[in-house]
Amino acid sequence: MKKIKGGITTPKGFKASGMHCGVKKSGKKDIALIYSEVVANAAATFTSNKVKAAPILVSMENIKKGKAQAIIANSGCANACTGAEGLEDANMMAKATASTLNINSQQVLVASTGSIGPRLPMKNILNGIRMLSKKMSKSGGDEAADAILTTDTRRKEIAVSVKAGGKTITIGGIAKGSGMIAPNMATLFAFITTDAVVPSYILKMYLKEAVARSFNMAVVDRDTSTNDCVFMLANGMAKNKILMWKDEKDFKQALFFVCEYLAKEIARDGEGATKLIEVKVSGAKSMGDAKLIAKSVAGSDLVKSAIFGEDPNFGRIMAAIGYSGGEMKQDLVNVYIGSTQVVNGGKAVYFDQKEAKNNLKGKEVLINIMLGQGMSAATAWGCDLTYDYVKINAEYHT
Amino acid sequence: MKKIKGGITTPKGFKASGMHCGVKKSGKKDIALIYSEVVANAAATFTSNKVKAAPILVSMENIKKGKAQAIIANSGCANACTGAEGLEDANMMAKATASTLNINSQQVLVASTGSIGPRLPMKNILNGIRMLSKKMSKSGGDEAADAILTTDTRRKEIAVSVKAGGKTITIGGIAKGSGMIAPNMATLFAFITTDAVVPSYILKMYLKEAVARSFNMAVVDRDTSTNDCVFMLANGMAKNKILMWKDEKDFKQALFFVCEYLAKEIARDGEGATKLIEVKVSGAKSMGDAKLIAKSVAGSDLVKSAIFGEDPNFGRIMAAIGYSGGEMKQDLVNVYIGSTQVVNGGKAVYFDQKEAKNNLKGKEVLINIMLGQGMSAATAWGCDLTYDYVKINAEYHT
Repeated sequence: MKKIKGGITTPKGFKASGMHCGVKKSGKKDIALIYSEVVANAAATFTSNKVKAAPILVSMENIKKGKAQAIIANSGCANACTGAEGLEDANMMAKATASTLNINSQQVLVASTGSIGPRLPMKNILNGIRMLSKKMSKSGGDEAADAILTTDTRRKEIAVSVKAGGKTITIGGIAKGSGMIAPNMATLFAFITTDAVVPSYILKMYLKEAVARSFNMAVVDRDTSTNDCVFMLANGMAKNKILMWKDEKDFKQALFFVCEYLAKEIARDGEGATKLIEVKVSGAKSMGDAKLIAKSVAGSDLVKSAIFGEDPNFGRIMAAIGYSGGEMKQDLVNVYIGSTQVVNGGKAVYFDQKEAKNNLKGKEVLINIMLGQGMSAATAWGCDLTYDYVKINAEYHT
Repeated sequence: MKKIKGGITTPKGFKASGMHCGVKKSGKKDIALIYSEVVANAAATFTSNKVKAAPILVSMENIKKGKAQAIIANSGCANACTGAEGLEDANMMAKATASTLNINSQQVLVASTGSIGPRLPMKNILNGIRMLSKKMSKSGGDEAADAILTTDTRRKEIAVSVKAGGKTITIGGIAKGSGMIAPNMATLFAFITTDAVVPSYILKMYLKEAVARSFNMAVVDRDTSTNDCVFMLANGMAKNKILMWKDEKDFKQALFFVCEYLAKEIARDGEGATKLIEVKVSGAKSMGDAKLIAKSVAGSDLVKSAIFGEDPNFGRIMAAIGYSGGEMKQDLVNVYIGSTQVVNGGKAVYFDQKEAKNNLKGKEVLINIMLGQGMSAATAWGCDLTYDYVKINAEYHT
């Protein structure tokens, strides 16, 4: 597997474009189109929030047959809590995209992100769709990556290639997400393309597994959005043979790498964040326990603010382990912050404060938790809780 | 029922004292004693955190027979993650208290709150216990209330009296709690006294119910502490007849009032808080659903920071309702912020922004959620998320 330059248009047969159509008042890009030259096998995961935005409902319907040829996505307005009119708008986005590209409207996936409540400015959106279809190109991936951002501070994209099934297969991905990021979801906002030949029922399995160990392990604020979704399109243009044995493993590893990279980018760019927190849990009785504990520590406001203050506060880490719901025995727990052991057998150890503080000075903080009870492990990603998180979310007005 | 001046020493037969013994570097009061002239029936609830502090383990053991005569509590050091030595220290606190008061050491309840990790300075604690037993008095309730505080900004105490069983019964209570306050716990830190005659198995039932609808519905940061506990002592000195029918109802109502008052005081004094948030949920299919939804909204970092910014952000409220895990149908939901309806049938309504903002200007914010699905209701209390929450928890160093 090789990380290469590029993004969503790097796999064969994909084009994209992004632009400002008039949803965002700031004048920043707010609408993106991703297009495959041929109908692609497709899979998706959606938010587990019971309040679902209109585009989620439309895409859930359209993905049913496992096929898609285009993704149309806007930022600046979530088209959520907009009732029957909002559903009509989301459907119209799919139809307008299909008609301008001359494809089947049931093979268009729709996504929206931004403020909850307002209707989409449909005149601007429809104009935007027309323009996007004219300007889409092999080099439009960056534009599309920019056009899905909201409070994000930077573009999130990646491409990797892997030799499998006798061919070079490429996977590209873009993502957005900075607030309303929480575990227990079917995720945030990521679009992944590949030129691999993969049947859609297998693609669905791969994607589900990849999302479970990447996006679903990223926590910014334990608030699950109404608009989360991951779409993946595999258009088969790499013409590889069916993926089996080592080839299948290599492809999955590449997909996991793409998803994990984007998930970490989202946590790193959490609203107001100055540090990425990686929480590794090992020695758990089950994978479920490991996940609960890793997410609990990564999501704790008290742990997050201690890390912002560069304080090796193991007490808050122990408390978050204990209330996570995951199985653990206090007396068996060892905790490291970076390279410094802070808890041994559930008990505070005397450690070098200076060394421990130094482990917290960088842009990435590693918390290593060994439960000593079994063989299961999991990793979660979060970010510190800062004044700017409060500022962004207190000053962001409806 | 009548709210009266006083606190934990207002019921007959209770004395208390509080002082600085040397746990806190600040010189503030850090140790409290509550004493009943006769052995009292007692009940307690404890943190559900799997990481339990040493004093919790000691008190869980001592409460088993349903009797207690004294509570010894310190602030400034939690005696948590301190291993076998910490357990010995907590036991020694009970024994020293018993020996200086000439009572049974199994009838002493122990509580500690403060930093996790360090050992208690036992020499200071033991000196403190000796002094406290000398200075305890009927007017020492305020001192005791002060001595259990940590990051709290004010004393939390209440007394009420009620006529029941042919006598006037008094209930007094004090509490502390400002950070590490989360739902799904058996709660934070509150001591309640009464001179009522109540058998301990009934007291246990009453307390459990009262805690479930008061302290367990208060959320500051969704971090459940390792040291949470509620102790209640009923010494029978009011000599009332057995409480039945209306009398039982009146007594329970008074107990609920005390617990709810203290729970609200805790939320109002949440770390960095400027506003108390009350979330009322009605029309739920079950009490469990109502509680999940109320706590989810009251605990959402995004809702909390919107309220700090005085922004009527109904989208974040809807999202928190949807991911709560509670049963709901989006199309049936109505939401009010203060007197202003912001969501009707799951859909945003056009409301007067100025009026809605005005509802957020006060010290108390009411969010009213009607689910339209059933008859169950619940209320949760939280507070806004402010710069000061981050400041307090980033600058508080281990």
